[in-house]
Amino acid sequence: MTKSQPKYRIIANKILENIQDGTYPLHEFIPKEIDLADKFQVSRPTIRQAIQILVSEGYLARRKKSGTWVQSTKMTQGFTHMIKSYSDEMGEKGVIPKTEVLNLTKITATLEIQSALKLSVDDTVFALTRLRFADEIPVVLVTSYIPTKYLPDLDQHDFTKESLYHTFKDHNLALRHASRELEILKADETTAALLQVSLNDPIFYFHTITYLDNYAPVEYSIAKYRGDLNSFKIEINQ
Amino acid sequence: MTKSQPKYRIIANKILENIQDGTYPLHEFIPKEIDLADKFQVSRPTIRQAIQILVSEGYLARRKKSGTWVQSTKMTQGFTHMIKSYSDEMGEKGVIPKTEVLNLTKITATLEIQSALKLSVDDTVFALTRLRFADEIPVVLVTSYIPTKYLPDLDQHDFTKESLYHTFKDHNLALRHASRELEILKADETTAALLQVSLNDPIFYFHTITYLDNYAPVEYSIAKYRGDLNSFKIEINQ
Repeated sequence: MTKSQPKYRIIANKILENIQDGTYPLHEFIPKEIDLADKFQVSRPTIRQAIQILVSEGYLARRKKSGTWVQSTKMTQGFTHMIKSYSDEMGEKGVIPKTEVLNLTKITATLEIQSALKLSVDDTVFALTRLRFADEIPVVLVTSYIPTKYLPDLDQHDFTKESLYHTFKDHNLALRHASRELEILKADETTAALLQVSLNDPIFYFHTITYLDNYAPVEYSIAKYRGDLNSFKIEINQ
Repeated sequence: MTKSQPKYRIIANKILENIQDGTYPLHEFIPKEIDLADKFQVSRPTIRQAIQILVSEGYLARRKKSGTWVQSTKMTQGFTHMIKSYSDEMGEKGVIPKTEVLNLTKITATLEIQSALKLSVDDTVFALTRLRFADEIPVVLVTSYIPTKYLPDLDQHDFTKESLYHTFKDHNLALRHASRELEILKADETTAALLQVSLNDPIFYFHTITYLDNYAPVEYSIAKYRGDLNSFKIEINQ
């Protein structure tokens, strides 16, 4: 995939490797632009663009008089403050998203799903399991349950290419509110294998109910984000 | 501490033990009120109060026609959607909070602290480390950095009895905004020992900057919440 990436993205990924392998340690300054330009044999504007990307992704922070330092070794996800499609969010970060669809079937709602989506015993839902990548690295494994009454032909869509949220939008289903509950999970064999982590590695474990304008629940999802790669930002005002 | 607790709290804790040991499994119904009253040899109003507490803490959920089921095996923390003192939050949940102060000293701000609190190289901060309990079980280990310029006599306070946020309030420092970043950490020896978990157990790792009305940062805190006991609720509107 690398050849389709612009030069500044390639350099950003190289700097990121140096952040993640500890060459540029957490909370310490990275080298000056001119030294980075020399190290990576590119122009200063390219370095500046690469740094800008890493600032917007939350890895680096910058203050005019002090310089640029390592703020986080992880990718900051907006999942905790907005309802946005994975591909849109990755696109804004400048990384290349990829989605594998592991399962898309119609099932009868279990008690847990009935309760989350306010369904009756006989109601059916689509169960959609997707593994999602950023620059070829698995980031999140997510299973969504969607009542079949909203989108009866959901299983006709190709979610390796289409976004579930864009599909909602195309059917005039406007998402207005999401209620997420966050726990930590230790990866079992399946999750470890799919997310390419070790058995028992810690995983962010989100349960989310997403609602339409009229507060009817339209999606219940269970997402497992790799603990080693992701961080979440939460803003509180009162 | 138990003898100071009301009867419904004691029963709530017994039901909670049954939730956490799997007697009442996640997402399954718990027994009817009348059967619980019989099991615990208390009146039905006491059972009803106990269930109400566990619903408000997020462990149980209820629907009129269906019954009451286990929603979560963990204590839901409001930390992700409000700025509130730990003791106030625990008080609302009906559990008995306790705080141990492990450290309270004046130090020179490191680069990380300077950056978070917008301080200069020579500025000093108070470093306050507290271990906080709910019903005698350690829940969170938190270190707060507070610029000495705001509260020069902070080290004269007894934070086993006083709340830091109430102290801010008493000095007319109104907290308006908090920016939290969430990661997962594996417990090292110290954290494992203090939080009474095993080495490498997963921990919620929050970095928070709290701001005054005028967006001046007044506290930088690093909190480690036990991964096995806590969950966090996040509401998103757009």
